Amino acid sequence: MKIQLAIDRVSIEKAKEISREASPYIDIIEVGTALIKDFGVISIKEIKEAFPNKIILADIKTIDEGAYEFQAAFNSGADIATVMGAASVSTLKACYKVAKDFGKLMMIDLLEVGYEKIEMLTEFTDAIFCIHSPSDGGEQSLISLLKEFKIKFPAISKLAVAGGVNYQTITSIKEANVEIVIIGGAITKASSIENEAKKFREML
Amino acid sequence: MKIQLAIDRVSIEKAKEISREASPYIDIIEVGTALIKDFGVISIKEIKEAFPNKIILADIKTIDEGAYEFQAAFNSGADIATVMGAASVSTLKACYKVAKDFGKLMMIDLLEVGYEKIEMLTEFTDAIFCIHSPSDGGEQSLISLLKEFKIKFPAISKLAVAGGVNYQTITSIKEANVEIVIIGGAITKASSIENEAKKFREML
Repeated sequence: MKIQLAIDRVSIEKAKEISREASPYIDIIEVGTALIKDFGVISIKEIKEAFPNKIILADIKTIDEGAYEFQAAFNSGADIATVMGAASVSTLKACYKVAKDFGKLMMIDLLEVGYEKIEMLTEFTDAIFCIHSPSDGGEQSLISLLKEFKIKFPAISKLAVAGGVNYQTITSIKEANVEIVIIGGAITKASSIENEAKKFREML
Repeated sequence: MKIQLAIDRVSIEKAKEISREASPYIDIIEVGTALIKDFGVISIKEIKEAFPNKIILADIKTIDEGAYEFQAAFNSGADIATVMGAASVSTLKACYKVAKDFGKLMMIDLLEVGYEKIEMLTEFTDAIFCIHSPSDGGEQSLISLLKEFKIKFPAISKLAVAGGVNYQTITSIKEANVEIVIIGGAITKASSIENEAKKFREML
C-alpha cells in the first residue's frame, strides 16, 4: 500500500521541508489544492524539481477546462493529477485523454459523488478512484464510504482513500487493501513529521 | 443586467490589459479559475489593486476547505467568490459564513448539479446562483438549463449564467432577466475587446 502525503496551507518552502522529513516513509507527495490555489502551478514544478524521484500528485481538483488544467499540471511535473468525479463526463474524458497522451495518471476524486454517477465513470479503467470524505465534514464516515464502495464496485481495483486518515482509521483501511492511502494533517501537523510518517509506514 | 467578464488562460499582465479595454462596458471582472490555478491568489490581488472600483469575482471554484479558500479569496481583494454546488452542504455553509463575516458575496456554481441538490441550497438566500454549462461540453444547452431552472426555482432571483455566451444566446438571456451574464471568450478573444464589450453592453 502506498502512502500519499497531502501537503496544504503552507509555503512552498515549508512544503519541501515537510516532504524532506517524511520522504523515507512515503511514496507520493501530494501538492495540495491549497498550494496550487495559493501559489499556482509553480508549486508543482518546485516540488517535482526538489524530489525528482518521488511520484508527485497535483491535487488540482479539475471540474471544467479538463485539457487545459491537466496539461498545466503535467507540464509542471506532476505524475498524477486529480479531476472531480462531479465534473461532466466530457471534462473527465478530456482529462483522461491528456493523461494518456502524457503517459501519466488521472485520479478521480469521488467527493460527494453518487453511485449512479460513479457507474458512468467505470469506463476510465486506468484511473485511480479516490474515496474522499470532505475536510469540512460529510454525512458518512470514510470507512463506511469505503466499505459500501467495495461492495458496489468490486471491479474497481485502483483505489485511494482520503479524508482525515489517522491511527483510528488506518487499520480498517489496511484491511480493505486499497492501493493508496492519503494522509495529511496526521503527519504534517505532528511535532515530529519523520517519526509520524515512520509510524504510519510501520502500521501498513 | 450586469456584465461579468471572465478572464482565463492569460498572464496577469494580459488580464489587466483586457480589463482596461473592456472596463467602460462591464461591471464585474472575473479572475478566472485558470488565472488562480496558474498563478495563485496573487492574481486576484493584482487585479483588485489595478481596478479598485470594479467588482472583482474570484472564480476559485471551492469544493472543499470552504473557510480556508474563501478567506484567501476575500483577503486577496475579491468581492465575490465561487463555490461549487457539487460541494458538500457543510462546505457551502462554511463558505457562506465567511462571505457573511467579510460582508461579501458567495456565488454558487451549478455546474453539473441536479435539482434535488439545488433544492438543498435554497437556504443560502443571499447567494447568487450561477447556471453554468461546462466549457468541455454538457448534455443540455445553457438556454435550456436556464429555462428549466426558472420554472423549477421561481423563488431564486439572484441569477447568473455562464458558458459560451455569445450573440446567439444573449437575446434569450436578456429575456430571462438574470442579474449577471458572464461572458468570456466572446469578448476576450475578439480582435477589438473594447468594441466587442461595447456591442454586448448595447444589446442588453
